[in-house]
Amino acid sequence: MRILIKNALFNGEKKDFFIDGKYITRIDTALNEQADVVIDATDKAVLPPYINAHTHAAMTLLRGYADDMDLMDWLQNKIWPIEAKLTEEDVYIGTKLACLEMIKTGTAYFIDMYWHLPGIFKAVEEMGLKALLAGVIIDMFDDVQANELIRKNTRLYEYLKWTDRIKFCLGPHSIYTVSEKSLKWVRNFAYENNIPITIHVSETEYEVEQCREKTGLRPIEYLESLNFLGPDVIIAHGIHLNDSEIGILSKHKTIVAHNPVSNMKLCSGTMPFQKLIDNDIEVVLGTDGCSSNNNLNMAEEMKVMALIHKSESGNTELASANDVYEIATNNRVKSLFPETGCLEVGKRADLILVDLNHYQLQPNHNLISNLVYSGTGDVVDTMIVDGNILMLNRVVYGEEEIRMQVKEAVKNILKR
Amino acid sequence: MRILIKNALFNGEKKDFFIDGKYITRIDTALNEQADVVIDATDKAVLPPYINAHTHAAMTLLRGYADDMDLMDWLQNKIWPIEAKLTEEDVYIGTKLACLEMIKTGTAYFIDMYWHLPGIFKAVEEMGLKALLAGVIIDMFDDVQANELIRKNTRLYEYLKWTDRIKFCLGPHSIYTVSEKSLKWVRNFAYENNIPITIHVSETEYEVEQCREKTGLRPIEYLESLNFLGPDVIIAHGIHLNDSEIGILSKHKTIVAHNPVSNMKLCSGTMPFQKLIDNDIEVVLGTDGCSSNNNLNMAEEMKVMALIHKSESGNTELASANDVYEIATNNRVKSLFPETGCLEVGKRADLILVDLNHYQLQPNHNLISNLVYSGTGDVVDTMIVDGNILMLNRVVYGEEEIRMQVKEAVKNILKR
Repeated sequence: MRILIKNALFNGEKKDFFIDGKYITRIDTALNEQADVVIDATDKAVLPPYINAHTHAAMTLLRGYADDMDLMDWLQNKIWPIEAKLTEEDVYIGTKLACLEMIKTGTAYFIDMYWHLPGIFKAVEEMGLKALLAGVIIDMFDDVQANELIRKNTRLYEYLKWTDRIKFCLGPHSIYTVSEKSLKWVRNFAYENNIPITIHVSETEYEVEQCREKTGLRPIEYLESLNFLGPDVIIAHGIHLNDSEIGILSKHKTIVAHNPVSNMKLCSGTMPFQKLIDNDIEVVLGTDGCSSNNNLNMAEEMKVMALIHKSESGNTELASANDVYEIATNNRVKSLFPETGCLEVGKRADLILVDLNHYQLQPNHNLISNLVYSGTGDVVDTMIVDGNILMLNRVVYGEEEIRMQVKEAVKNILKR
Repeated sequence: MRILIKNALFNGEKKDFFIDGKYITRIDTALNEQADVVIDATDKAVLPPYINAHTHAAMTLLRGYADDMDLMDWLQNKIWPIEAKLTEEDVYIGTKLACLEMIKTGTAYFIDMYWHLPGIFKAVEEMGLKALLAGVIIDMFDDVQANELIRKNTRLYEYLKWTDRIKFCLGPHSIYTVSEKSLKWVRNFAYENNIPITIHVSETEYEVEQCREKTGLRPIEYLESLNFLGPDVIIAHGIHLNDSEIGILSKHKTIVAHNPVSNMKLCSGTMPFQKLIDNDIEVVLGTDGCSSNNNLNMAEEMKVMALIHKSESGNTELASANDVYEIATNNRVKSLFPETGCLEVGKRADLILVDLNHYQLQPNHNLISNLVYSGTGDVVDTMIVDGNILMLNRVVYGEEEIRMQVKEAVKNILKR
């Protein structure tokens, strides 16, 4: 398909974009290319989409199912029992709802970790987003489980039709749910096949204490002792880190996916943002799953990130609008999808149009400040990914059908 | 005007509402009253509007003008110089934009404190919201200024056509900008005329230290020594309070307007929420002005309130969705507008319809959780205040005109 975008605001100037197939082929003024679709982008800005670096998309089905509870009570009596009832079909539907929400709020790339991977794959395939989908490993230190999950993830990697839009990664859940044997297998399999790894690390103090009791090491030290860390590892949370661990993460160029809303809601603690950036660690931003957030709205996540780090440090200049916007849109995670995320000729056509006439963006003293501090994700008007129009003027194809499927799925889950 | 609302979800049941003039006159099933407007509220919930208990509405014009700066640098070099340029016409336009945003996000009541009161009054009058508008007093301990402001506020009270929808209150800015003489005048004038008072108190540590140096007392002790406190006083912020001050506020049934987003963005500190509610102090919620937030979205304010108090206390049960929703919708501030805010026959017709099909509210395990944790203000579909339709299916009359007026006003302000 060929798309011509007319009169969009781009780096402060009015520009036309011509998209041919998956690629941006021209950026200029007064383009008159023959196109299948012409989008009038007057009073709209062309911007890169957001990257949600950590989520469990299918848990959107559990949004609002249980909140404001003690963590273990919440997990043991609410979340785990209902999660156990989810089928691959439920996960497919939950992930479609998640993709709908991400499209509506301007997120084109995400890193996901959840069970029933074929259901997730199918949903992302249909909805048109780009994702890194983690094959989950939770063996609870049981050798039979470990072997089974190794077999299962090898099959998933080989059997699903991974593309340059939807890629496989490995998701060992955490050091307190995954054996050393599985962690070592993950590391080797990832090296051999050149695939990234994502893992929850140092989310709670309890996890750190447990690790020290068991291994004599703190979580990051333990992972280093297994030669697990590297630039292809994205650790989610990274809250309870001491200076030595921060040094280790920096040395290995490991990425940290920050989830401020979830961390606040679950009272997990606050990630040491200043120290991480002082040590040149790449911090990326995620929403975590909908049962602990309860949305996938990167606009909100950016604002809360800015607020919590200012508030905790007493430094009004920390986590500025420009800094958190850069973290949410332009980071190394993006580079896992080749050639994407740059608004340049020859690159993949991944972009959003933001409605500059939206009431939330009035007046327009500073667009980045408005996107971070004032607007919700609803200022996003249009999304194009790999040259496909996923949303046009706020309309996403199939929205009503997804809503009906979700309603039916939830009714059935609650009956089980 | 007579309005018939059909098939709305109300307390878990389908109900019709008949509104005749300013009042709800019937709530029942299968109503067939003759009406000027019939609203199909299938898949919509009838709910009370939000109350924004502290704002400076006209500062919406300064949204994004300056952020992420040291507080004094920000005030002295950015905010105060541009504020000095604002005319009554600018304030009128800025307040209209603020009212537009409040309508779009479900806020019907607000307490405002800003200069050029006639401009604010005119905007609120036109936009249809209910407000308590504070006549500002900042005399900087100068007797000439004090006399001038006393005269000015007396005139404002007598001259503007205050109604039961738009009411006057007194807004001495703070104890560090207002003399004892003016504070005493405010207290007497408020008693004599039965009008409320709103004042910024204990927003920063510096303010507390300054007060102690000057008077030997902490801010709340100082205000009590002037017999200033009472159930008709709404203090904004109330962050740096010790136990004795909390006891004093409790004794006088003084209301505290909490502004968590602004407090985090400006690094002011965290209000001791648990202690305030343990001492039966009524906490209400506000957004503060747009230069320190940068929006007037009560949905976001509720979520951030829940997040910061959980995060600070380590108690996941504190500031639950139900608690913050109650604080944002049903509090004593509402009672300053007689008969409003109760969805009952015989009461004023002030209500919002929330779109239950909105993607942010899927699935609907728990509507209150969804409103607080998942949805933005954009789930509000329709707003009625005093029987007037201020928004219908997201459309607010005159939105485009306000946008154009704001653009023009900002251009002129920046030129001055």
